[in-house]
Amino acid sequence: MKRIVYYVATSLDGFISGKDGDVSGFTGKGNGVDQYLNDLKEYDTVIMGRKTYEFGYDYGLEPGQLAYPHMAHYIFSDSLILEKKDDALQIVNLDIEVIKKLKNQPGSDIYLCGGGQFAGWLLEHQQIDILKIKLNPLILGAGVPLFGESKVSCQLEFQDAGLYQHGLQIITYGINYEGQARAKN
Amino acid sequence: MKRIVYYVATSLDGFISGKDGDVSGFTGKGNGVDQYLNDLKEYDTVIMGRKTYEFGYDYGLEPGQLAYPHMAHYIFSDSLILEKKDDALQIVNLDIEVIKKLKNQPGSDIYLCGGGQFAGWLLEHQQIDILKIKLNPLILGAGVPLFGESKVSCQLEFQDAGLYQHGLQIITYGINYEGQARAKN
Repeated sequence: MKRIVYYVATSLDGFISGKDGDVSGFTGKGNGVDQYLNDLKEYDTVIMGRKTYEFGYDYGLEPGQLAYPHMAHYIFSDSLILEKKDDALQIVNLDIEVIKKLKNQPGSDIYLCGGGQFAGWLLEHQQIDILKIKLNPLILGAGVPLFGESKVSCQLEFQDAGLYQHGLQIITYGINYEGQARAKN
Repeated sequence: MKRIVYYVATSLDGFISGKDGDVSGFTGKGNGVDQYLNDLKEYDTVIMGRKTYEFGYDYGLEPGQLAYPHMAHYIFSDSLILEKKDDALQIVNLDIEVIKKLKNQPGSDIYLCGGGQFAGWLLEHQQIDILKIKLNPLILGAGVPLFGESKVSCQLEFQDAGLYQHGLQIITYGINYEGQARAKN
């Protein structure tokens, strides 16, 4: 079965972007970024939430375009409408059964591009298999948390860590959902 | 001048304790914990907030006792009252001038034991010099953030990382306060 890999940059205090979507503090160059871009070549499928897809518009992405040309795109949204779109891009409802079907297709692991809210929803449904964290030497203090508003707590299983230029680390964890405690608030 | 070293366990999502002070998910054994305990021998002074001091009561600390017998203790609080206390323990007001005086004394670096609220106050006053993060393979989802309610954003300077048993890493960063952006909300 395909695994879902949440491969994402975070600050040391656990934010994937700062206030007002500010990602300027994250390391944008060096051999860690090269490693990430190289790793992305392995994926044939990317999933993301609407906000993450639309975030690309600020960086030149046209509505309906592929953010990663070699991947099939599934944008999970109950509200996004695109007038025209690439054939390899699908807008799908936030339905966990769609996720399970995707995991049962042949092919590579699935790249979970973000964002926090979508990742939190997947975590609550125990559908994320691997975390690959680009740990940036940065305190953000506010912004979008790694798992959005999710309060799920779970143990991770350390797999690997690499140190790159500019103090960037890429750390890989499995997720142990056994004994997962969900906050009740 | 003495440096203030915030040496603290965090989850991957940036919490120093879980909901209701739950720290049971943090690694409590292995050579990383041994390293931490060994490192503590280097400090002659510990500073902490009231809640962190009182948290020790749950683990057998008597009010007024030293949490770390070889260190001078400064508990920063405008409200804590202890009927009797060790001579090496002082309750001091939350006054940044006291911090500056401590840093100008001779001796070792200062161990900042916590908690998040006190550390956030120190960060806002640019008084923390080193972060030593015991990065635990753990998602907490809720709890006490590394810097409490502080919204300060700042770049860090990676210094060193060590991998220990049970997937624990100890990562050391300097703090670059230049260009520090404070959130305005």
